[in-house]
Amino acid sequence: MRALVEAARRKGSALVVGLDPVPDRLPPGLRAEREKHEAVREFCRSVLEAVVPYAAAVKIQLAHFERLGPEGMRAYGELVREAADMGLPVIADAKRGDIAETAAAYAEAHLRLYGAHCVTVNPYMGADAVLPFLEEARRLGRGGGVFVLVATSNPSAGAFQEASEPPASELAARLVADLGEVRGCDYPDAGAVVGVTRPEAGRRVRELLPRALFLAPGFGAQGGGISGVRALLGGSGGGVLIASSRAILYAFEERGGDYREAAAEAARGMRDRLRTAGVKV
Amino acid sequence: MRALVEAARRKGSALVVGLDPVPDRLPPGLRAEREKHEAVREFCRSVLEAVVPYAAAVKIQLAHFERLGPEGMRAYGELVREAADMGLPVIADAKRGDIAETAAAYAEAHLRLYGAHCVTVNPYMGADAVLPFLEEARRLGRGGGVFVLVATSNPSAGAFQEASEPPASELAARLVADLGEVRGCDYPDAGAVVGVTRPEAGRRVRELLPRALFLAPGFGAQGGGISGVRALLGGSGGGVLIASSRAILYAFEERGGDYREAAAEAARGMRDRLRTAGVKV
Repeated sequence: MRALVEAARRKGSALVVGLDPVPDRLPPGLRAEREKHEAVREFCRSVLEAVVPYAAAVKIQLAHFERLGPEGMRAYGELVREAADMGLPVIADAKRGDIAETAAAYAEAHLRLYGAHCVTVNPYMGADAVLPFLEEARRLGRGGGVFVLVATSNPSAGAFQEASEPPASELAARLVADLGEVRGCDYPDAGAVVGVTRPEAGRRVRELLPRALFLAPGFGAQGGGISGVRALLGGSGGGVLIASSRAILYAFEERGGDYREAAAEAARGMRDRLRTAGVKV
Repeated sequence: MRALVEAARRKGSALVVGLDPVPDRLPPGLRAEREKHEAVREFCRSVLEAVVPYAAAVKIQLAHFERLGPEGMRAYGELVREAADMGLPVIADAKRGDIAETAAAYAEAHLRLYGAHCVTVNPYMGADAVLPFLEEARRLGRGGGVFVLVATSNPSAGAFQEASEPPASELAARLVADLGEVRGCDYPDAGAVVGVTRPEAGRRVRELLPRALFLAPGFGAQGGGISGVRALLGGSGGGVLIASSRAILYAFEERGGDYREAAAEAARGMRDRLRTAGVKV
């Protein structure tokens, strides 16, 4: 986690800008007369350039690149490199969940080949699905790690993650606690994805993981507010990175004008709101 | 599920051949002097040609293509088309687990763009993560569907999937029951991944899902035997497809000789064992 934590502290920002590029929502000028993957790539690169002063890191949602075929994956790799050149560590939001040598193959793909620092991982198959990603991150020694899905921000999450005793989110949190190691950074290399839309669950997960770094989606577009963020803060008032995608990427739809300026303004505003609320890493 | 079920009945086979191509394990002749993705593609295509008389369908493990970069994804797409030309429906073993429009993007990628019939899906994020795949399969109308991870065959599975009350595997099974619909086939379009290595869990999942089609890994290489398979059979003695990868792909390592002949022999032997045991669809 060192790469993320250092960037967040250097920038004084707890904001992770998410790239969820939906081709139909790109600015009309970018959509005209070109291949979708080219338009997506230019859009994403321009947004990164616009938000780089305000963002601690970037989270790339793999689904939107996978659906563009092999050329989409090429664009993903190029964006990871460009983000790194701008000093933005990359979280591959892949939510992969497979085991042993198969998980190792995914880890190799995202952390080694494409070059992301961190990757999101699904806990349903247990420790076998998480450990190979941590092992690859440790071998690479680039200050990366994993974020395990614990309490997600989507509407049907609770019906699965909180419907048993102990809740599945608690089992996932235990995996994070058991597998993470502190390496060159004051946070363990296994963190947790905890949405800001379910403060009750978030508070409980924080009790289980007092020292872990949280990656928290759901702020803004998914309806989560600053009170949901406060529920996730650790004892020292930190330990949370807020991931925001659509509210920044598509800020031009509401604000009008140039999409880059709209994204920059949205990112700066969000960074400032998080600062004011005392959210930090 | 119609595509899978029809193929299994036409062939009289409950065997799904899994493609998990590990570059370092390819036959030496294929490894020499060429790009990894080309070697993997030729290996997989040749194995498919060899096993086509004995296999109901093919399961492609995405991790091993993703780790080969954009060209690996191109090879995956080509293999899906080639399998379809051979009359083999394809299960994309992607285990994707994301929500709403993101899940829809993954569904578009695997079912529409790359052309697989079915896809494996992770239930941790609840119904939001499963339904978009079913909706895409239904729109396409090609007799496809999803297999939801329920009780997997890996060593750490039980520590997550059976460690609560009700167990997470039961919550996953309920998703399968709630979301699947019967469409042009006597099985619902949502099936379950249930390993043959945990007969206790398998028997319980079968009670919860008396009518569902199971995709069962873990036979052979992962230590599961025919008794583990029997625990999964439905009331009429059917409803199970057995997925076998390494025991077929790498049969040449033990048997020697041509890898295609070794794969064909292993696949025929496995089909026959399953027939003798009364495993069918």
